[in-house]
Amino acid sequence: MNMFVNLLEKMSSMVDVKRSAVASEESLFRIFTVPEAPGSTLAKIEQDISNNLAGFLNENIAAVEKPLHEIEKDFQDAHIPEEPRFVSEHAQQLMEQLVAHSVHTAAPSFIGHMTSALPHFVLPLSKLMVGLNQNLVKIETSKAFTPLERQVLGMMHHLVYGEDETFYKKCMHSAKSALGAFCSGGTVANISALWIARNKLLGPDGDFKGINSEGLMAAMLHYGYKGLAVLVSERGHYSLGKAADVLGIGRSNFIAIETDENNRVNVDKMREKAEQLQANNIKVMAIVGVAGTTETGNIDPLHDLADLSVELGCHFHIDAAWGGATLLSNNARALLDGAERADSITIDAHKQMYVPMGAGIVLFKQPDACNVIEHHAEYILRKGSKDLGSHTLEGSRPGMAMLVHASLCIIGRKGYQLLIDKSLEKARYFAELIEQEDDFELISEPELCLLTYRYVPEQIKSVLVNADEQTRLDIYAALNRFTASMQKRQREAGRSFVSRTRLNPHQYDKLPTVVFRVVLANPLTSKEILHDILAEQRELAKTDPIFKKYLSKYMTS
Amino acid sequence: MNMFVNLLEKMSSMVDVKRSAVASEESLFRIFTVPEAPGSTLAKIEQDISNNLAGFLNENIAAVEKPLHEIEKDFQDAHIPEEPRFVSEHAQQLMEQLVAHSVHTAAPSFIGHMTSALPHFVLPLSKLMVGLNQNLVKIETSKAFTPLERQVLGMMHHLVYGEDETFYKKCMHSAKSALGAFCSGGTVANISALWIARNKLLGPDGDFKGINSEGLMAAMLHYGYKGLAVLVSERGHYSLGKAADVLGIGRSNFIAIETDENNRVNVDKMREKAEQLQANNIKVMAIVGVAGTTETGNIDPLHDLADLSVELGCHFHIDAAWGGATLLSNNARALLDGAERADSITIDAHKQMYVPMGAGIVLFKQPDACNVIEHHAEYILRKGSKDLGSHTLEGSRPGMAMLVHASLCIIGRKGYQLLIDKSLEKARYFAELIEQEDDFELISEPELCLLTYRYVPEQIKSVLVNADEQTRLDIYAALNRFTASMQKRQREAGRSFVSRTRLNPHQYDKLPTVVFRVVLANPLTSKEILHDILAEQRELAKTDPIFKKYLSKYMTS
Repeated sequence: MNMFVNLLEKMSSMVDVKRSAVASEESLFRIFTVPEAPGSTLAKIEQDISNNLAGFLNENIAAVEKPLHEIEKDFQDAHIPEEPRFVSEHAQQLMEQLVAHSVHTAAPSFIGHMTSALPHFVLPLSKLMVGLNQNLVKIETSKAFTPLERQVLGMMHHLVYGEDETFYKKCMHSAKSALGAFCSGGTVANISALWIARNKLLGPDGDFKGINSEGLMAAMLHYGYKGLAVLVSERGHYSLGKAADVLGIGRSNFIAIETDENNRVNVDKMREKAEQLQANNIKVMAIVGVAGTTETGNIDPLHDLADLSVELGCHFHIDAAWGGATLLSNNARALLDGAERADSITIDAHKQMYVPMGAGIVLFKQPDACNVIEHHAEYILRKGSKDLGSHTLEGSRPGMAMLVHASLCIIGRKGYQLLIDKSLEKARYFAELIEQEDDFELISEPELCLLTYRYVPEQIKSVLVNADEQTRLDIYAALNRFTASMQKRQREAGRSFVSRTRLNPHQYDKLPTVVFRVVLANPLTSKEILHDILAEQRELAKTDPIFKKYLSKYMTS
Repeated sequence: MNMFVNLLEKMSSMVDVKRSAVASEESLFRIFTVPEAPGSTLAKIEQDISNNLAGFLNENIAAVEKPLHEIEKDFQDAHIPEEPRFVSEHAQQLMEQLVAHSVHTAAPSFIGHMTSALPHFVLPLSKLMVGLNQNLVKIETSKAFTPLERQVLGMMHHLVYGEDETFYKKCMHSAKSALGAFCSGGTVANISALWIARNKLLGPDGDFKGINSEGLMAAMLHYGYKGLAVLVSERGHYSLGKAADVLGIGRSNFIAIETDENNRVNVDKMREKAEQLQANNIKVMAIVGVAGTTETGNIDPLHDLADLSVELGCHFHIDAAWGGATLLSNNARALLDGAERADSITIDAHKQMYVPMGAGIVLFKQPDACNVIEHHAEYILRKGSKDLGSHTLEGSRPGMAMLVHASLCIIGRKGYQLLIDKSLEKARYFAELIEQEDDFELISEPELCLLTYRYVPEQIKSVLVNADEQTRLDIYAALNRFTASMQKRQREAGRSFVSRTRLNPHQYDKLPTVVFRVVLANPLTSKEILHDILAEQRELAKTDPIFKKYLSKYMTS
């Protein structure tokens, strides 16, 4: 400890003379060796979180929204502060400038995004994870975390693919296998899956050493393809386009296929398009099924897609970042029938598995799928090692698998089943509620716990029925602006939150249509809250400036 | 709350009859609404961490290593448990099966990897981060976290590039700019930088819409290149090869250039290679400088590389995942002279900035560099928004920027300067110590706080001086096996940890040479500990089976 004391002595002599030497010594000595004193600001914050997280968030997050440009004023200085600072002082500022103006993602009335209230036990476990500070890239810095992560991947693989005991006994902890990979989120999971699909398609062949070694250009010349394509529903997540860019396939070769009125991809159209492409010597590298879509929660016909992938001889990936958790309910898992035929599948544990942000998962049907992206280095990831980093896109990364493991064990499959079933039930309830109200309109039915809707007064619905084309288009445009305005005003008022997106629903002649979007995964969202949200929206509509300007004229007709 | 109570009633009736209904109701009701009771197992664990993290780790991580195949026995079941489980029960098991067999990355005597003891304040702040559970992909789910992250990127940009006030005022919070990106770690940072380099090189041109849209094949045909190449020192991090694979360039076009005896890239050889490639119509897409290398901590001649990149008209990236923090010390930052000329630079805050795992950063000299990888979607990342997710490889991700921000403010630049200076001083001290000992041999001098060395008894050194070639090669091979054996035995004994790697040092005729590798960044590592480690290694050597079998015969000669 001598060295550290010297460091502190030197430090105290360097600190701004306006600060007392004692104070600076304290503020610096504390940081590596002494925990926060029980009475300190940060300790009190922590205690408040531990005692009552919901209360803490309710009290400390400002209800009324502060405009972004106002918030930015507190984050203007591009200089790293020269002098050290007391932890308590920083904590105080953090509460005022950051926490107060963060988003209450756990609030039961904030039903516009895919985050939810979290189980309490993840808080102390997260702290344990940070305190242990393991690095999952290699066993040397993660030890038991590596078998634990492999087990969680095994459990998730079993959930999707349901192989037998022998399979998991052989593969789960084998250096030659990887049943999947953990990553920060669904985007990296999707990129990883398509990376594998690309490298598998363009693998070593005769003199050609494989795309991983020689690159895409050489691979295309060797295999004689003019281009590569990936096909997915027009409701596919934007991360898939990003994957196409990163992997060198190109966004324009990432082809969006029309959906039916239920936002499910039209497999016949996909087949047609694929045949057209292949006739032009553009190889379909992969088709992607969505389960469920980010905007509406609908699930593509997975068996039909699996059949098509067999016909085309291509990789079949499923983006189940949201819907994957549905497999945990024996009552609902039939919605994802066919998922077990996918070559790879993305599931985000930080979505409907109630784990904090940063827990993406991709699973591979074949335990050796990862071989085509394997890499080694001298000082780590040596050949034959069980290091997880030898087949992941990311390198160093934290032990989030611990939180997924804990959630699976503590909530249990039956616990998850209840959570999933209740969320589906709640979405159906809200859909019925919307349909009962004359001035609301359900746009997409909930297949999972997502739905979309609009506020459209009955009189305007009536006008639309008999309107000429120009009037109809005028009203459509006005309704779009009005819906966006309502959504923004509701968010700013801070009592509740629904998100918005743009769809092409058949009700609106497949024209771009702005809608409210809700995700009903938070177990604390009650039916009362759903009633309140509609009531609040009805009130907001009465004072909406866009409505007044463009739509009120139709109310008198 | 009614719905939740119903859920619990239903749940309690479903739970295994062997568990009491009350217990199961409690164990499930608790999870979303009631914090851990102060006397519960998990609450006690958390209290222990808060009171004394070092003590907690020392007590709970088993000193003696349990073999991996033994640990794996606790993680065999591939079935998600059907029934819910008490948090305390799970916590207890976690302590025995996971925590006990994790790696004590914070231990001052564990100097083999790039993790260190962490400042105490990151523990409660991590808990706050998890409790807030923001998603940084978009403002809608992160609010003040977005300006905060932009500020941290501004501060880090200023640290590297030192632009003036006007620059940061204009760019830091602009929807049109991104001074960098946060990501899970250095690997994603490096991939992001090379992705930008690739897309910038092969951008839109006349009828060609750009590689991001049309893909690599079309881009190469349009620009008339036969191939792409990236040049880097043979000591470059393996993640760069991974980037070459992912981006479709191919690992064999990722070209390793020889280093000098100080592990710094030979820029003349790089120039020669680049000219050769370009003469063959293979376009050098980027050159990468390393600052410092993962294995030895050496820094490439950055100014010479910057000059070369100007000559070649290519992107200049610096992988400063480890060394970037050195810029925080005014006494040491000259080591990275020329960094300010890089188009992009990777810095891992979870390395020598003492932030927990998961805080990678990539910075861009030009505030519009990201435009070539920009992407938008309907429901988020709308054009003109300040959403961070519109220009990052990852999508959903946690608010780690908060921890970097806190560390910069609380430790301050001067605090970091002391930490960096002390680590360099400690490495020089250890190097001198090794050189003073007859039976040790310094292999690479510390330029940053990394060094490599071996245990080689004086008698063997003498034999080597006059040995014939075959004997020399035999001894080299034996020393390699011996060094590996020592490293493994030291790790298994659990008192201390050095890592090992394979270099080609001039002392060993540039032949592959296994060496001990140490990283002296932990502020709690004392000089005494360094002495102890050498003493322990000397003892281990006496009983080493490989030494006995292959090397002891030379001791008597």
